[in-house]
Amino acid sequence: MSKHTISITKTTNPKPRPDENNLVFGKYYSDHMFIMDYDAGQGWHDPRVVPYGNISLDPAAKVFHYGQTIFEGLKAYRTDDNRVVLFRPDENWKRLNRSNDRLSIPAVDPEIAFEALCALIDVDREWVPSAPGTSLYIRPYVIATEPQLGVSPSTKYMFMIILCPVGAYYSEGLNPVPIHVESEYVRAVKGGVGNAKTAGNYAASLKAQEGAAALGYSQVLWLDGVHRKYIEEVGSMNVFFKINGTVVTPALNGSILEGITRKSVLQLLRSWNIPVEERELSIDELVEAHRNGKLEEAFGTGTAAVISPIGALHYQDEKLTINEGKTGELSSRVYDTITGIQRTELPDPFGWVVEV
Amino acid sequence: MSKHTISITKTTNPKPRPDENNLVFGKYYSDHMFIMDYDAGQGWHDPRVVPYGNISLDPAAKVFHYGQTIFEGLKAYRTDDNRVVLFRPDENWKRLNRSNDRLSIPAVDPEIAFEALCALIDVDREWVPSAPGTSLYIRPYVIATEPQLGVSPSTKYMFMIILCPVGAYYSEGLNPVPIHVESEYVRAVKGGVGNAKTAGNYAASLKAQEGAAALGYSQVLWLDGVHRKYIEEVGSMNVFFKINGTVVTPALNGSILEGITRKSVLQLLRSWNIPVEERELSIDELVEAHRNGKLEEAFGTGTAAVISPIGALHYQDEKLTINEGKTGELSSRVYDTITGIQRTELPDPFGWVVEV
Ligand SMILES: Cc1ncc(COP(=O)(O)O)c(C=O)c1O
Ligand SMILES: Cc1ncc(COP(=O)(O)O)c(C=O)c1O
Repeated sequence: MSKHTISITKTTNPKPRPDENNLVFGKYYSDHMFIMDYDAGQGWHDPRVVPYGNISLDPAAKVFHYGQTIFEGLKAYRTDDNRVVLFRPDENWKRLNRSNDRLSIPAVDPEIAFEALCALIDVDREWVPSAPGTSLYIRPYVIATEPQLGVSPSTKYMFMIILCPVGAYYSEGLNPVPIHVESEYVRAVKGGVGNAKTAGNYAASLKAQEGAAALGYSQVLWLDGVHRKYIEEVGSMNVFFKINGTVVTPALNGSILEGITRKSVLQLLRSWNIPVEERELSIDELVEAHRNGKLEEAFGTGTAAVISPIGALHYQDEKLTINEGKTGELSSRVYDTITGIQRTELPDPFGWVVEV
Repeated sequence: MSKHTISITKTTNPKPRPDENNLVFGKYYSDHMFIMDYDAGQGWHDPRVVPYGNISLDPAAKVFHYGQTIFEGLKAYRTDDNRVVLFRPDENWKRLNRSNDRLSIPAVDPEIAFEALCALIDVDREWVPSAPGTSLYIRPYVIATEPQLGVSPSTKYMFMIILCPVGAYYSEGLNPVPIHVESEYVRAVKGGVGNAKTAGNYAASLKAQEGAAALGYSQVLWLDGVHRKYIEEVGSMNVFFKINGTVVTPALNGSILEGITRKSVLQLLRSWNIPVEERELSIDELVEAHRNGKLEEAFGTGTAAVISPIGALHYQDEKLTINEGKTGELSSRVYDTITGIQRTELPDPFGWVVEV
C-alpha cells in the first residue's frame, strides 16, 4: 500500500478553530480523521482521510464488552519557521505494535501508519497551533469491531487517528505537584497488560486517581502489585528520582509502560555523563534517601507534560517534600532540552525530529 | 422512574429468527435493545426500548480509549408451560453496581434495570427459544461516551441491554475439557479490577487463551499474580475441586470475580451437607492431591455453561487426568439440579427463579 491508496474526502463544513490561548487537553478535534479497516482474511484495507464525525458500531462490537483496543499518543509542533514536526514517531509505531501483539490485535505496518498520519496532518495543517507551548496532540488507536459476544480476538478492527490542538502544559513555568503514594489500588502486574498501551490500564486507574484528588494530590505514585513496595509509574507517566547525584528510574519489568519520553531522557542524561540507573527502586529506599537529605529531585515523564516535577510525596501519613517543593535544576535542564529539540530551537543530535 | 417512563419504539422491520437448533453463542441479536443515557448533573434519563441497530459515537468517546465500561451476563429460559423466567437477576444488578463503583461509573438503580429488562423481553418475547437446552442470553452493559481524551471518569454514559438466543451448551451431555495451567500471563491481581466485570480483564486474557488453544487446551487455569501459585479462575469461570470428599473453591480475595453460579453452587452443596471450603488453594496442593488419588472432580462454573467439568490439567509438562477424564457424579448432580431449577423442572427451594 503506498501513499496514493489513501483516499481523501474533505469536509464541506469546516469548524471554527478554537482560541489558541484557551485550549483544553483532549476537548477540540480537527476537521478530519483517518480510518482504515481490518477484516480477517483480507488484512488492513481502505485507508482513508474523512471528515471528523461519529462512527457507527454494532452494540455487540467487541470493544464495548472486552476492551480489545490499544492506542498511542504523540504530538506535532509548529516551528518558528512554520514547519510541522513530530518527535520520534517511529517509536510510537513500534510500541503500537507491541501493544497490538499483547492484545492479540493484528499488526499495523509502521509505514502505512506514518503515511496515514502525514496525509491527515496535510489536510488539517492549519490545526497545528502556533501560540507558545501549544501543539497538536495525535491519537492513533485500534478498536475491535466484530459484533460477537464470545471472548476471543475480533475478526474486525478499525485503526483510526484523531487530532486535537492542545494548550501549553505549563503556562507559567514548570509547576511541581504533590503526589499520593497509592497503597490500596494497583495499576498493573507482571504477566498482565501494564506494558501495553491499552484501555483497561486507564480504566483501572480512575478510582485511585479520584481518591488521591480527594486528598488534595494531583496524581498517584503506583507501587508494584507483587511486593507493594517497588515504584512503578506516576499517574500516566514514567518516573525519575535524583538520589545523591545519580538518576534512578524503575527498570522495564513487564508491568511498566515503556515511555518514549523516558527513553529520550535516559539517552540525554547518558550523553551528559550523568550517572543513571534503571533498576528496582523501593519506596523504603526513597523514604530513607529523603531522611538523609539525598532525595534531590523527582519528576514524571510523558508526552503530555514532557517533564512533571514532583514537589512532594505523601506516603503513610508522612509528607516528603522534595527540593523544597521547587523544580530541580536537572528537571529544568531536561525539560528545556527536550522541548527545545522538539520545537527545533535546539540542535537535534539524536535525529529525533521528523518533518511532515 | 417507574415502568411507564420507558418509551417503546417497535421495529418496522423484524428479522427472521435463526434456526433454534443451530444457534451460536453471541452471534444473533433480537429485534430490540434497551438504552438509557447518563449526563453528569442530570443522572440517568431517557430509558427506551428501540429497534436493535448501530449506535453512533464520537471517535473520542472514552470507552474507545480508556475502557471505562462494565457488563453483566444472565439468561432467560422458556419453561415447558411457555413462561419466561430469569435466574437470580438481583444478583446481576448488585454485581453491576459493584463493578460500576470500581470503575468510577455512576450506579444504575436495580429497579430500573429490572423494569428495563422486563420491557425489553416483553417486546422480544418470541426471541426466547424453546428447543431443549436453548436460552436467551442477556447482556446489560455500560459504556463511557464523553468525547474527551483526558484520563478521568466520563461525564456521559450509556446503559444498554442486548439479547441473543443461544444454543444448548452441551448438545450431547456434559463434556469434560482439558485445561492448561497458565504460568506466564496473569488475569488480575489484588488491588486491580479482577473482581469487577469490566472489559479490560477479558482483553488481558486473550493472549493466554490463544496460547492454550495452540497447545490443544480449551481454557487456561489462572494462578494468582502475586505468588503465582494459588488457583484463581478457569477461563471466564469460577472453579471448584472435590478433594477427598470436600469441595474446595478459591475464596473471594479481591482478584476473583464473584460468580452467581459459584454462589448458587455453594448454597446447594451446603444444603446437601457436603463439606465445602472457600480458601486459598495452591496448584501444588492440587498436584499433591492428584498424586495421592484424592483429586476426585474438578469443574468450572458460569452462566454460559453452568457447570464445565475439567477432564485434565496440564501443568509444567505434566498432565493430571481427573476422574479418568469423565464427568464426576457431583458435577452431574450440581448441573442437573441448577439447570432443573432454572427451567422450573425442579422445585426452587431458594427462590432463585423470577418470572418475567
Ligand atoms: C501509563 C503510561 N505510562 C507512561 C507514559 C509515558 O509515555 P510517553 O513518554 O511515550 O508519552 C504514558 C503515556 O503517555 C502512559 O500512558
Ligand atoms: C471472569 C469471570 N469469572 C467468573 C464468571 C462466572 O460468573 P457467573 O456465574 O455469574 O456467570 C464470569 C462470568 O460469567 C466471568 O466473566
